[in-house]
Amino acid sequence: MTVGDVAGNADLVLRWTRHAVQRGAHVVAFPEMALTGYPVEDLALRGSFVEASRQTLHDVARRLAEADLGHALVIVGYLDGSPDALPQIGRPAGSPQNAAALLHEGRVVARYAKHHLPNYGVFDEYRYFVPGDSLAVTRIHGVDVAVAICEDLWQDGGPVAAARRASAGLLVVINSSPYEMNKDDTRLQLVRRRAAEANCTLAHVNMVGGQDELVFDGDSLVVTADGAVLARGPQFEEGCLLVDLDLPPADGPDRAFVGELRLERTVVSGTPLAPYPPMKAGIAARLPDEAEIYAALVTGLRDYVFKNGFRSVVLGLSGGIDSALTAMIACDAVGPHAVYGVSLPSRYSSDHSKDDAADLAHRAGVNFSTIPIEPMVSAYLSQLELAGLAQENLQARVRGTTLMALSNQYGHLVLATGNKSELACGYSTLYGDSVGGFAPLKDVPKTMVWRLARWRNKAAEERGEVPPIPESSITKPPSAELRPGQLDSDSLPPYEILDDILDDYVERDMGREQIIAAGFDAALVERVLKLVDTAEYKRRQYPPGPKISLKAFGRDRRLPITNRWREVAPRPAPQQDTAPAEPGVPGEQGTPPALARP
Amino acid sequence: MTVGDVAGNADLVLRWTRHAVQRGAHVVAFPEMALTGYPVEDLALRGSFVEASRQTLHDVARRLAEADLGHALVIVGYLDGSPDALPQIGRPAGSPQNAAALLHEGRVVARYAKHHLPNYGVFDEYRYFVPGDSLAVTRIHGVDVAVAICEDLWQDGGPVAAARRASAGLLVVINSSPYEMNKDDTRLQLVRRRAAEANCTLAHVNMVGGQDELVFDGDSLVVTADGAVLARGPQFEEGCLLVDLDLPPADGPDRAFVGELRLERTVVSGTPLAPYPPMKAGIAARLPDEAEIYAALVTGLRDYVFKNGFRSVVLGLSGGIDSALTAMIACDAVGPHAVYGVSLPSRYSSDHSKDDAADLAHRAGVNFSTIPIEPMVSAYLSQLELAGLAQENLQARVRGTTLMALSNQYGHLVLATGNKSELACGYSTLYGDSVGGFAPLKDVPKTMVWRLARWRNKAAEERGEVPPIPESSITKPPSAELRPGQLDSDSLPPYEILDDILDDYVERDMGREQIIAAGFDAALVERVLKLVDTAEYKRRQYPPGPKISLKAFGRDRRLPITNRWREVAPRPAPQQDTAPAEPGVPGEQGTPPALARP
Repeated sequence: MTVGDVAGNADLVLRWTRHAVQRGAHVVAFPEMALTGYPVEDLALRGSFVEASRQTLHDVARRLAEADLGHALVIVGYLDGSPDALPQIGRPAGSPQNAAALLHEGRVVARYAKHHLPNYGVFDEYRYFVPGDSLAVTRIHGVDVAVAICEDLWQDGGPVAAARRASAGLLVVINSSPYEMNKDDTRLQLVRRRAAEANCTLAHVNMVGGQDELVFDGDSLVVTADGAVLARGPQFEEGCLLVDLDLPPADGPDRAFVGELRLERTVVSGTPLAPYPPMKAGIAARLPDEAEIYAALVTGLRDYVFKNGFRSVVLGLSGGIDSALTAMIACDAVGPHAVYGVSLPSRYSSDHSKDDAADLAHRAGVNFSTIPIEPMVSAYLSQLELAGLAQENLQARVRGTTLMALSNQYGHLVLATGNKSELACGYSTLYGDSVGGFAPLKDVPKTMVWRLARWRNKAAEERGEVPPIPESSITKPPSAELRPGQLDSDSLPPYEILDDILDDYVERDMGREQIIAAGFDAALVERVLKLVDTAEYKRRQYPPGPKISLKAFGRDRRLPITNRWREVAPRPAPQQDTAPAEPGVPGEQGTPPALARP
Repeated sequence: MTVGDVAGNADLVLRWTRHAVQRGAHVVAFPEMALTGYPVEDLALRGSFVEASRQTLHDVARRLAEADLGHALVIVGYLDGSPDALPQIGRPAGSPQNAAALLHEGRVVARYAKHHLPNYGVFDEYRYFVPGDSLAVTRIHGVDVAVAICEDLWQDGGPVAAARRASAGLLVVINSSPYEMNKDDTRLQLVRRRAAEANCTLAHVNMVGGQDELVFDGDSLVVTADGAVLARGPQFEEGCLLVDLDLPPADGPDRAFVGELRLERTVVSGTPLAPYPPMKAGIAARLPDEAEIYAALVTGLRDYVFKNGFRSVVLGLSGGIDSALTAMIACDAVGPHAVYGVSLPSRYSSDHSKDDAADLAHRAGVNFSTIPIEPMVSAYLSQLELAGLAQENLQARVRGTTLMALSNQYGHLVLATGNKSELACGYSTLYGDSVGGFAPLKDVPKTMVWRLARWRNKAAEERGEVPPIPESSITKPPSAELRPGQLDSDSLPPYEILDDILDDYVERDMGREQIIAAGFDAALVERVLKLVDTAEYKRRQYPPGPKISLKAFGRDRRLPITNRWREVAPRPAPQQDTAPAEPGVPGEQGTPPALARP
């Protein structure tokens, strides 16, 4: 599914329904907002888009019937709404709803609107949607099928409890649930718990693919009320998970309300199917941690590239570990033939760095060229008096401009190679090494970069291939090589410690006191926290990259740029108030100008 | 007030309370979240920050009493919360509230939590706050004072209706209500209507100053129940609006609930004041449209610069109207001595452009230098084979890199000079003319740029000063001067038409059909809409700039980058479904790579 490609997504619904029905399916379910893609963000507020979604839904129902697929009950997520609804402050114009339609014999026989709307983390659903207040229960072949959508599963009460009260025989939950590390474990436990609460079999259908900063990992699941896993789809692979279910005949009460939700019953067919021998469904194995994260990064990059109409990527190869891992993710996403690696040596680039860059390109089989930046740097220095940081940043910006020129000339998407630890601390040059359309490692801490690099080499070895990443790129001390002998450790604490502090501060929102209490040096904590706070302006202009953690930079973590809050020892309140500060005096805590590799 | 500067904001509360009480005030009100600044965004989710706000509030109460100011009732907006509240999915950790405290004689005598939370436009308050469910009515000198916060005024029902039911004698509404063109008129009408509904005098207290992309315009207001304006503060100026009010003695019922809100009564003092001769309060005149917009831009830039600790700005002066107006806004924000204009001529820069740039710098009295970019451009071209767009973009990026080098070397904040029309259409070079820490014209359409330039010259003339902007910068046809004879009109429709289409599409969310029905050429509409849609990736990396319109680019308008929705004539649905498209094929609608001045 691709956001906004309503016609293309409709075609996918047709294609996969045919696939499933040809293999015997009676009920076919697609993910949350499958027709529009997810998340559509402010497209939900545009009447023309809402209307396209509604119109296409009815087209799909008709096309399914015309293709002799109308006897299946097809559950499709879409964007509903009333384009003519009166605008009201605090409620989106047109009252859009995140909805599921149940299609049968050419018609929309029932619909359900998401009841619990997430408005935390990366989600803004109160901005867009009006919550639903009813439960749709549709009887097909004598089985009562209830439907819910994503967040409905994560919140207590609401549709899950209502499904139990309605005595549903099957609860189908359609999702666009973004990937995070270890979320598959959480999800399995949650689905088991909710299946028990709903007191029926629960089918959890999830989106697959990348959408800007989100990656949907699939991992669809079918679990019985007593917690048995009947089927589980693979991670990061679009496909059809076919499951034969032995479901109880409908005997639910026909009441007006189930809990706080109105009950809307529809009968498509009351006659049970004749018994038939069930097929055993597949239970795909889970990927190990590194493989899972790596697959998320590859999926995120691949979909960003292709869904945006690019066919190739370009990146700078420094000989370091970040660019090496980014290059490998790119190779696995778009193929080495479509990856263009460029070595951009300066006078400070060591021979081993240049060799490592060329070595990686050779092992990985990517296109490779070398463009020395010395002539450009010299031209600037002939016109400008620059020293220290300004001169260091200049080199990074000449590289950025060179990569962008190649992008403009040849149509490649530029990849930024920075990692989450650097982005957190502002250890990068704005418009320099941060240029790019996509940043695959944006949410990957440096220590994880090393883990993934070693894992990728090991995976190659296990397949009998040459390990693509040169050992020295993994083992040498990290350096930006913007001045002689420069090392990351001149400016930053060891990455093992830094990443732990960042995890506490960025992902867990812990304050200074709590982090120090967790066992870190107070001065170090203050230094790191100040770096993170003052780098906000750089993160705002950083390219998107796939979220893999609990809290990624981007819309997952929204902080002001102008922000004088510092997690330092609290300033003692004056005991008297004889000379309060005058307002409007600029403070020294302000953001340093375009700070770079500090 | 500055976001995060809890100690500094507390000092401001002390300072202004002393100012007001020395002039006889009995009740002193500060804006919404005055102690923390507004909006604090995800700082609201950090326990240490919530605790600092709560602790500082109690410190302020104590300091007021120690300074012999405790007899006044001081109403202060702050961030409240229970850092120990159990986290719950879908509800912010710590259950923060956007609250008002009423301070008296060293204590917090009452508190009110915002009931209606805005979650549209630039607001995300469902993400942060738990809504309040009570109305605080505090009796002082025998008058019952009710308190509400910002959105409570914009929504029907809730605290306004409850204030009537409680028979409040005064409703104080504290706000951090961001500036938009013409919002002062809307606000006056709204305050009048709500005062009538509350059936009492209403005091509307608003924040002043810039915070990242928002500008708060002040415009505080006191209106009686029958709509008479008793006092009105100036726009964009921090100050104390002192008003003597003749208010009815308390006679409200003491019930448990007023409407859906719990009623929480506090009595500070039941004895009415002895009558005294009232002072007549000021009613500041409204600024004319251009003056108001210009003041918003100056305020937004000034506060961004100083609150972030900068003391000077640098920008490229092309001789065109955008950089000329930006330079004047900078002069008025930080003073001409702190503005550094740089002419960056290329081989395509006309003599008149260079002359206009120098002329503007001379008239405005800003620092001026010239740095030819030819040597740098030639150095790149010696290493890279570039043609057409790639060569044009290169020039813009050499300029961007040069300005950033000056920023790094001398500590100036770089200003981007692009306008909203360009940003909408992607008519700019990523990492080129778009570099900068702040973009004063980000929300100003090109036609408004001309209006503001003419207005600024006229204002100078009226003060007997030399009009700073050269007439030829205003009258000549706009050009990016990146190739010989290039004009904006080669690529874009006339700005008068373009800006009207953009207004319909961007600010009003109208679809293609509606815009064409409004009288625009269909092909032109499709072309403009496609430009806007495909430029989203550039806007994501653009610097912040002050919002002045109904819908600014930034968090006011959130669209996916990966987005295949196009407002073109709907693709006819196939009548048969014999050969649906295969999934995963990249479409030709994708974002062109790093597209620039197309």
